[in-house]
Amino acid sequence: MSQFLAQAHEAREASIALAGASRATKDRALAAMADALIANQAPILAANGLDVQLARTAGVTEALIDRLSLDAARLAAMADGLRDLAALSDPVGEVIRGWNLPNGVHIDQVRVPIGVIGIIYEARPNVTADAAGICLKSGNAVLLRGSSSAFNANQAIVAALREGLAACGIDPRAIALVAGGREVTDEMMKARGLVDLLIPRGGASLIDAVVRTSQVPVIETGTGNCHLFVDASADQSMAIDIIINAKTQRPSVCNALETLLIHRSIAETFLPRVTGALRQAGVTLHGDAAVGALDPTIALHPENGWDDEWLSLDLRLALVSDVSEAISFIRQHTSGHSETIITNDLAARQRFITEVDAACVMINTSSRFVDGGQFGFGAEIGISTQKLHARGPMALPEMTTTKYVVTGDGQVRA
Amino acid sequence: MSQFLAQAHEAREASIALAGASRATKDRALAAMADALIANQAPILAANGLDVQLARTAGVTEALIDRLSLDAARLAAMADGLRDLAALSDPVGEVIRGWNLPNGVHIDQVRVPIGVIGIIYEARPNVTADAAGICLKSGNAVLLRGSSSAFNANQAIVAALREGLAACGIDPRAIALVAGGREVTDEMMKARGLVDLLIPRGGASLIDAVVRTSQVPVIETGTGNCHLFVDASADQSMAIDIIINAKTQRPSVCNALETLLIHRSIAETFLPRVTGALRQAGVTLHGDAAVGALDPTIALHPENGWDDEWLSLDLRLALVSDVSEAISFIRQHTSGHSETIITNDLAARQRFITEVDAACVMINTSSRFVDGGQFGFGAEIGISTQKLHARGPMALPEMTTTKYVVTGDGQVRA
Repeated sequence: MSQFLAQAHEAREASIALAGASRATKDRALAAMADALIANQAPILAANGLDVQLARTAGVTEALIDRLSLDAARLAAMADGLRDLAALSDPVGEVIRGWNLPNGVHIDQVRVPIGVIGIIYEARPNVTADAAGICLKSGNAVLLRGSSSAFNANQAIVAALREGLAACGIDPRAIALVAGGREVTDEMMKARGLVDLLIPRGGASLIDAVVRTSQVPVIETGTGNCHLFVDASADQSMAIDIIINAKTQRPSVCNALETLLIHRSIAETFLPRVTGALRQAGVTLHGDAAVGALDPTIALHPENGWDDEWLSLDLRLALVSDVSEAISFIRQHTSGHSETIITNDLAARQRFITEVDAACVMINTSSRFVDGGQFGFGAEIGISTQKLHARGPMALPEMTTTKYVVTGDGQVRA
Repeated sequence: MSQFLAQAHEAREASIALAGASRATKDRALAAMADALIANQAPILAANGLDVQLARTAGVTEALIDRLSLDAARLAAMADGLRDLAALSDPVGEVIRGWNLPNGVHIDQVRVPIGVIGIIYEARPNVTADAAGICLKSGNAVLLRGSSSAFNANQAIVAALREGLAACGIDPRAIALVAGGREVTDEMMKARGLVDLLIPRGGASLIDAVVRTSQVPVIETGTGNCHLFVDASADQSMAIDIIINAKTQRPSVCNALETLLIHRSIAETFLPRVTGALRQAGVTLHGDAAVGALDPTIALHPENGWDDEWLSLDLRLALVSDVSEAISFIRQHTSGHSETIITNDLAARQRFITEVDAACVMINTSSRFVDGGQFGFGAEIGISTQKLHARGPMALPEMTTTKYVVTGDGQVRA
């Protein structure tokens, strides 16, 4: 048996008792995990120092080095994140619905943990503690497949988290770091019956590869090619505030704006206003031919280039003749994350809500609000852009499944 | 573009307007579809006659001929099934939760159709109308991949259903029969972005092949290797009634009993009682070594043969030393469908509920109740044995996803 399969079997064993752990036990474990991170600050930061040194030798970019690096403050934030989870209510045991059959049989649909969750993610070592904490609170064992560039820190972090579990009587094998190369990711994707769910977190190509290959159920997260449509009836000043916020408040994230669609009937007046504001905010503009006809200083964007995220201070602009054309455009290019309309027209709002196929439809507000923390969920393991199981920001309830508990006193089917 | 891809694109087009169709329109369409089935009785039965004739020439079993065959009564039942769907409430538009953020932004989580659903199923032509009706009521377009042995009848049925749609102003391309061989199933499984969900209905090998190969999300349905554990504290007469019901009331279905586990401490008295009753009901018994030691007339069942469904009047029996061993045994062999305990012990009941990993856990009642109709759902597209999205009997709400509708009046993120 490979090392991964041994870990997966251990995690499944551990998940059985964890599924029945009380909220008090799990919350004590989260506090103990936080304490253990702080108590092990020296070995964790030393291990991280080694990762950073290896990454520098390998010549990775400073942006990546920054994402990889830990210090006392970042470690304290990780510990605080675990303590915050303890304050959230336990999704396990929630009765979603319950009813009696005419013959007296009683049925409850109850939230239960999924079992064993595999997380495949890239550089940042803080995800290790975040994901482990969310899985623990929701009663799931977790197999963490982090980036090899963060391996030493991840190993030290997981060792500390396991100390915390053991101190509270929870089987420490409920949190495991999966080591090895690409072949281990392949093993995870084939582990039907051992791993119940895979969540890839990272770039679009990682996610796409996992979705296409995995035999284990997957939840896609993250890719956000977000549009905003300014309708003819829009409050134009409001539109500009929201556009600037959605594009510039944090351009590197999945809920940032990537393409602006403008109703043709207002373009002549609105385009100069919005492009002025965008340029002042440092945004580089790329337009379709119709936009270029109104403002030749905007670079013509190629026709086959409207599907990707910029993740930078760049923005595509196009004109559309009405809400129908806006919806068609969005349906063609959306990644299903968050789509925005700025309008004062009730019929346009309703069509946009019904016909745009995305996890979140925003009306007169910024897509930057699409986030588990902003939604008030208190935790987030990612933003699902698929339609099954969970769609949009995923928090603790989305890390559970349900079970029907059917109770009788001898009833049989006639 | 292949014929399948053309149909998939048409179904996606049709799904857009269908997602916004009112309940009244959909219910009128269901009635019109039912009327059209009856009005087209002659061509449908003639097409079915051709299928049956071809099947006979190919030498298929009489059991399969029976499943394939339609007559006026069966067609009327299909029409009634569509009319019954009209009486069920519309899942689309249900607000699951709604709340305000501190800044005044309002969020609603609303049920919406999934989009385009592919159903891959075996012989029975009544599934064609059932599945089409459930998808229509839940606002989804459907691509029906029926058995080639039922192709002529399915074609005539779909033509009638489309007549019904067209009469009510719904794009008839929302219901399509997919024609062709194995290569078309492969195309369906690769149609990411065009097909949102695949539901295979049929034998374990079909389902397993689809789950392992598909790049489109799949919901597994159907396989039921169901156990029943008689605890030491059980009311033994109640246990026997439930065992006879679960095993013999309809042995060919997924919620029938396949393996009986008996607490060792009661085996000496209980085994003769239950085997007497089972034999009287025509059940053939297969036992482990411990059962064989108590009753040498029971055939010894091989150790590696405890994972499959019998789907016949056969039953495996084994002794276990306590509820822990029963749970371990079930965890090792369950297909995750329905597992039963007969007990009067509260602690045993609670452990069984928490630690058995199945869609439905039955306490002191028959697993034959695990069925959308019996649960009171009014419709069923299958019984999910997986943990994501839907688990257990799937009805109209399980054929939907959700969308967050986020409404503001200019709020931006600070």
